[in-house]
Parts: sequence; structure tokens; C-alpha cells
Amino acid sequence: MFNKVLVANRGAIAARVIRALRALGIKSAAVYSEADAHLGYLAQADEAWPIGPADPKASYLNQDALLDVMKKSGADGLHPGYGFLSENAEFASRVQASGACFIGPDPKWIAAMGHKTRARELMARHGMVMAPSSGLLGEDIDAALRAAQMLGYPVLVKPAAGGGGIGMMRARDAAELAKALEQARSLSRRSFGSAEIYLENLLERPRHIEFQVLADRHGNVRHVFERDCSIQRRYQKVLEESPAPLLERATVERTADHIVEVLRRLPYDVIGTVETLHEQGDDFRFLEMNTRLQVEHAVTEEITGVDLVAAQVRLAAGARLDEVLPPELQTRGHAIEARLYAEDPVRFYPSPGPLKTYRIPTGPGIRVETGYAESDVVTPWYDPLVAKIIAHGDTRAQAIERLRQTLDGTVIAGIKHNIPFLLRVLNSEEFQAGRVHTGLATQLA
Amino acid sequence: MFNKVLVANRGAIAARVIRALRALGIKSAAVYSEADAHLGYLAQADEAWPIGPADPKASYLNQDALLDVMKKSGADGLHPGYGFLSENAEFASRVQASGACFIGPDPKWIAAMGHKTRARELMARHGMVMAPSSGLLGEDIDAALRAAQMLGYPVLVKPAAGGGGIGMMRARDAAELAKALEQARSLSRRSFGSAEIYLENLLERPRHIEFQVLADRHGNVRHVFERDCSIQRRYQKVLEESPAPLLERATVERTADHIVEVLRRLPYDVIGTVETLHEQGDDFRFLEMNTRLQVEHAVTEEITGVDLVAAQVRLAAGARLDEVLPPELQTRGHAIEARLYAEDPVRFYPSPGPLKTYRIPTGPGIRVETGYAESDVVTPWYDPLVAKIIAHGDTRAQAIERLRQTLDGTVIAGIKHNIPFLLRVLNSEEFQAGRVHTGLATQLA
Repeated sequence: MFNKVLVANRGAIAARVIRALRALGIKSAAVYSEADAHLGYLAQADEAWPIGPADPKASYLNQDALLDVMKKSGADGLHPGYGFLSENAEFASRVQASGACFIGPDPKWIAAMGHKTRARELMARHGMVMAPSSGLLGEDIDAALRAAQMLGYPVLVKPAAGGGGIGMMRARDAAELAKALEQARSLSRRSFGSAEIYLENLLERPRHIEFQVLADRHGNVRHVFERDCSIQRRYQKVLEESPAPLLERATVERTADHIVEVLRRLPYDVIGTVETLHEQGDDFRFLEMNTRLQVEHAVTEEITGVDLVAAQVRLAAGARLDEVLPPELQTRGHAIEARLYAEDPVRFYPSPGPLKTYRIPTGPGIRVETGYAESDVVTPWYDPLVAKIIAHGDTRAQAIERLRQTLDGTVIAGIKHNIPFLLRVLNSEEFQAGRVHTGLATQLA
Repeated sequence: MFNKVLVANRGAIAARVIRALRALGIKSAAVYSEADAHLGYLAQADEAWPIGPADPKASYLNQDALLDVMKKSGADGLHPGYGFLSENAEFASRVQASGACFIGPDPKWIAAMGHKTRARELMARHGMVMAPSSGLLGEDIDAALRAAQMLGYPVLVKPAAGGGGIGMMRARDAAELAKALEQARSLSRRSFGSAEIYLENLLERPRHIEFQVLADRHGNVRHVFERDCSIQRRYQKVLEESPAPLLERATVERTADHIVEVLRRLPYDVIGTVETLHEQGDDFRFLEMNTRLQVEHAVTEEITGVDLVAAQVRLAAGARLDEVLPPELQTRGHAIEARLYAEDPVRFYPSPGPLKTYRIPTGPGIRVETGYAESDVVTPWYDPLVAKIIAHGDTRAQAIERLRQTLDGTVIAGIKHNIPFLLRVLNSEEFQAGRVHTGLATQLA
């Protein structure tokens, strides 16, 4: 096991990792930028090192500064948290090259999953389900129409050379397809210098279902159930829950087992999450794989009792999966996480400022993960996440009620925040019935 | 069910009850003394009514003021919390007479259990185990020596007319007994005008084990497992846990079933806790019964998932026990509660004052129940309890570690507090091994 681990992150996740390290009896070395020097969680670490100015490029993204603190502090492990350098294969390799352990998967998997198309090819080759798609289409409109009919409408027209959503067009029928093909070709030619396009079957109201995976360095992989993260605003998750509502357990578990099988073939290691899109009656389609701890890991912890961060650290240190997980993992009740952001609740612009008042009521089934305390300042430099509030209950209805009541009773002054938006979603008939999809939050905003 | 419930208490338990009422869809009316007018939890209630000056006699113990608010607010139920008027049979009767419901057992059981000797007789008559004792002893020293031999040393010499521990003397052998008899008789004559004494078998290192009971108004009684509350200072519990460590489950459950059987014969109703003393190899001896929610109810909630406060409210309203509890109650993991007091950690004198800093770190398995926030003032008027910190873990060791880490990371300025003492107990070899008894905290203080 490690003697000392550098926590290369900030805020709620830094506090969370420091806590897990102490539970394991491992010393922790925290780092902080000039903007974060006063934050209270730093005192929970055994050491805290300054790494540079507020600008993350100069501090939390500054590889040299972090490697320098690793050396000075004598840390033999580095936990990257999420965001910042957590999925940077080069950084992971540099940590390993320094003789310390990067607490995450082998850098080759970080690199592979970091390239979205390479990741899709890799996963497809090993048997993961992808969205049904046509081959590359020529100029022949009839061929495209035939392909669309085969796939079934609606379809998505995608530039083969594309990225970032540019040139992607929806089509619900043949008439729309003709127009979409033309527009997509034109946009693609302009942006990528290539008019090559293909069609993909489109899910109109998909759910974002992701599968938590743990793996050891000895070829063993297991899943720790799924999370439904369909409630998103501007492609950012805001409410996450487990188990996913209204899904047949047998289907979910078959999919989870299949994902484990695919990852075992690589073999993948330490920790990761496979994100999929799913619509009723359809398969779970591979979206991407995150090679790190997720922001929303706590909902899984609440229903399983597994400390995912401690498990990640132990697996990275070489522990076998059966030492880290009980033989039979069981879930208990339902958990939902709300991400409390310092942002405008309507336009979702960040709203940094001082937390003049910051009081979250607690009670049974409520867990709060935060890096801030009253009178701290949310600066404009980093992610505007203020807290994650996780509610656990015997039933989904109880978890919703507990979360609703906690958000309703939270008192914050000094910044704008998204609680009104979170409550709008929690109070909606669709959410309460479990009829969630990735477009729901926008409909309700 | 109730339309509106008056919460006739303050602080952490008032906040807890308000929360349970909201979860049940019942309106809550809080009350506050002049000293508490600024406390944040009042805003969580639907209404908050002033009931008088800081002095509890003029406010939280002021029956007329509370009954007046009941009438004005239109509340049809009253939750007494713990302490204050929660075990006052007269008050409970007055609430009932006003046409509202007292959320607790029938006032006759409050009255019966409130008289300690009457409670002992009542419970003994229905089959509850008491400490073995001699009959009343005359002046004959030989008869007393024979009785002591029958009971087995050590024995406790008790004035028959006594109370409050006055005149109670320990004796480990015949020589000590002769002296003890003389002293006890003399003290008893002086204090109670009677020299009648008797002997009771004494437990030297007893554990305080209590059994949580729920019952409906239809004759059904069930237990919700036990709590070990052996860690006490000045007869006040400071650490409570469930399940009780190092006890055979079969013995505990047989005792719990027996207690349920005794209470079913009364039949007892709504909520209560049977406190016992226990030493290895001996029975669980009846100590007293509390006819209200306990301070330490949350440890039971954490391992069972049962919301005891909501259950209490529903049972008082007439719900049947099988509507409130699942058919098979199961426990999960281990929970420990620490009571954080504003007091000197060595002499245990109250230390009221302003909570200039008040930050309790959170994380997996940590629940905090408090009525205070940073910058609030702990006044000298009430119980100096600042917060209850409840740690849950898969194992007792994990619960201890989580609690230890949370207490260690808690930052409080402005008052003295008992965290150093709590940590001394948690870090002790005896506590960690589960070798707890009611004298342990004093040994470690």
C-alpha cells in the first residue's frame, strides 16, 4: 500500500479523497492554488502544498508543479480526482515514470478511451453495442434513402471526418433526409475538407445510463451497478441516481455483465465508467468510457455501501478485486445526487461570489460533499460546483422527498445557484414517474 | 393522519421532527423561546410561534403557553421530542383533553413508568427480569450475611425507602457488608426516616443495553433491536451504538422478544425504550423504561433504514404496526453516535458561548443532527448538546474510523467542547475491542 498520496485536485473531490486516504491509514498531501489557500478541507490533509496562481493552467493543470510536489513530499501515489489532469495519459505516464503510482488505469487505456473514435472502434471490436449505422455514403441519394429505411427513422447524418457535433443533422423522414444530406455535406466540406458522411440511427428521447466498473491489475473486472444521469443541462449532469428507474433489472444486469466481459478482454484496470445511451426497447449503445472516478460516484456508494475511492486506491496499489468487493454485491434502496452549482438557475451562466450564508440542513439519508464552508468564496477560476447533495431512501419516492426537502431548506446568500432549477425537475411529474431522458431538463428549464 | 403538528421542543430534535413531518406531508408548527428566536431550523417549519422568555420554566416547560399555541395554530397533534415535557403525564393528558393527540404512549403508561418503583413492580409482575435481591432485612447481621451469600458478592445495600442513590453502599465481602449495613441504615434513617434496607446483587462492570420498541394502538408491539449506551459521563450517555458489540445475537434477540412479550401484556403503545443493565453471563436486568423517543434514536435508523420519528407519528395517529414496519426487519452494518456537547472536556461543566466557527466535515456514512449553525450562540439555558454525529459503516471498525475522522476534523471556536474526551474513548483499546461498560468513560476521562 502507499505511504503518502498526493491529491492532485481541489474542492469537494479533494476533500473526499483525503477522507478515503485517512480511512486507509495513508498520509495525504493536498495541493492548492493561490485562490484556494484558505479552504477548510486543506487542514484535513496531513500536508498542503502551494502549486501556483489561481489560473488552473498554472496550478491544477501544471504537470511540472505537481510532479515537483510529488518529489518534495515523498508521495508514492497520486490521485487525480476528476477533471483537470485525471484523463491526461501523458501526465499519468510521467507520474509512473517518476517511480510513483498513478491511481487510475494503465495510461494506455486513458489514451485509448480519450480518442472518442478510437475508443468506439476498440469497444466495438471487443463486442460492445454501438448505434446502428450505415457505411460511408456516396453522392447517390437513393442509396442513402435505402440505408435510412434499413436503419429506421429518425436518423442522424454524421460527417465521417467530423467532431464536436459540427454538421450533425437529424432527419425524421425521406424529405428531411434529402435536405439534411445536402446541409451536412456542405458543412462537412467547409469544416473538415471532406464531404464523406454516414447515417446513424437516432434515439429521440434517450436516457444516459452509465455502468460503474472496478478492476484489479490481475485481469479481474466487476461492475458496481448502473447510474441514470439523464438529467443534464448544457451537456452537464445535474441529477444522477441509482438504480435507474423503470428499467427491467434483468436487462440492466445482462448489459452490465456484457460490459464487464468486454473490459475483461482488454483487460481494463482499476476504475472506469462506461456511458451508454438507451431508449425503451433498444440496446444500450456505447457513448464513451471515462477512465477515472465520476463526480456522481456517491450514489453508487450509498446503495451498495462500497467506498469507491478507497477501492480505487487499493486496486491501484495492486489489491485483488475479491479483497476489495464482497462476493455478492447487493443494493439497498435508492439514491439521488443533486449538483448544487453557483450559476444562474435559468441561463446556467456561472455566478461566482462569496458564500455569505451557506447552510444545508441535514437529516436521515442525507450526505453532503463539499469543499466550501460559510464565508468561503466561489471564485470564477474553476468549475462552479458548490456541493453534491446525495439523498438515500428505501424507495425512489423517499429519496426524492428527502432531496427535495433538503434543497428546499438550503439557505444560500451571496451567489446565484441552481436550486430553483433542481426543484423544478424534482417536482415535475415526469421525473417523479421516472420518465427521464436527456432532453427533459431543457424542457423544464 | 394529522393536519398540523406542534413541535414542543427545540434544537436538534425539533429540527428532526419538523423534517419527519414534512416527509409525511404534515404541516409543522414550531415554538421558540426568546433565546432561540434566531435559530435557523425554525424556518424549516411551516409556522413558528414565540412561547416566552429564555427560562425553560417560562417557555418549553410552560404547559399553558404550549396549549395556547396549539389552539391558536389549529394543530391536531403535539410531538414532545425528548426532555422538557416529553414524560409529563399530566401534560400529555391535557393535550388529549384539548381534543388533540399527544404523539406518545397513553398518559397512563407515562405515569406508570415515571415512578421508578411502580415501573419496576409493573414490569416484574409481567415477567421482566430484575436484579436478584433479598427481602427486607431486620437488625440480624447473620441473616444479612446469609442473604448476601445467597445472592453472591458483590452486593448493593439499598434503603427500601430510598431514592437518588442516597444510602446505597457496595460490599465485596462479609467484612465490607457489616460496615455497609451500618452506614446505609444510618444514612437511610437520617434521609428517609426509616432504617429498612435490602440487598441487591451488584454488577461491577455492567453494560447499559436498551431495547427500542414500537407499538400501535391495536395491541401490537415489536422491537427495533438494541443499542449499547454504556459510554456515559456523570450518568449522561455520550456514545451510543448498535448492534451492541460482543454479545451473542441469539441472547439479545431472545431478550428483545421477551421484552416485546411483556409490553404486549400491558399493552404498551406508540414508542418506548426499555433500558437494562447487563454483564457477561448474566441476564438483562430491567433499569427503567423511557416513554418517548430517545436522543440516540438515529443509530437504530442508520442500521435499519426505519424512520423512527415518522413511525412514531403514524402509530400515534392510529396506523397499524405492520403498515409502519416491514415484515422482516434487518440490520445493515454498524452505527455509532457521538454527542457533541458545549462543555469542558475534563470536568464536564457546561461551556455556553458563541459558535464562532462550527464546521463538521461530512462524507460517506456520516449524518449530523444539529439545531445550530456557525455564528449561532449556545445559551446557558438548555441542554448543552450542540450536535449528534452519527457514523455508519459496514463494520464496527469502519464506523469507529469514520466517527473518529469526523470528530478529528471538526473545527469549533468560541466554546469548549467534549471532542477531546470523545476521541480519547474512541481511541482507547477497550472501546475498540468492544469491552465497554458504564465505568469506562470515567476511567478514561
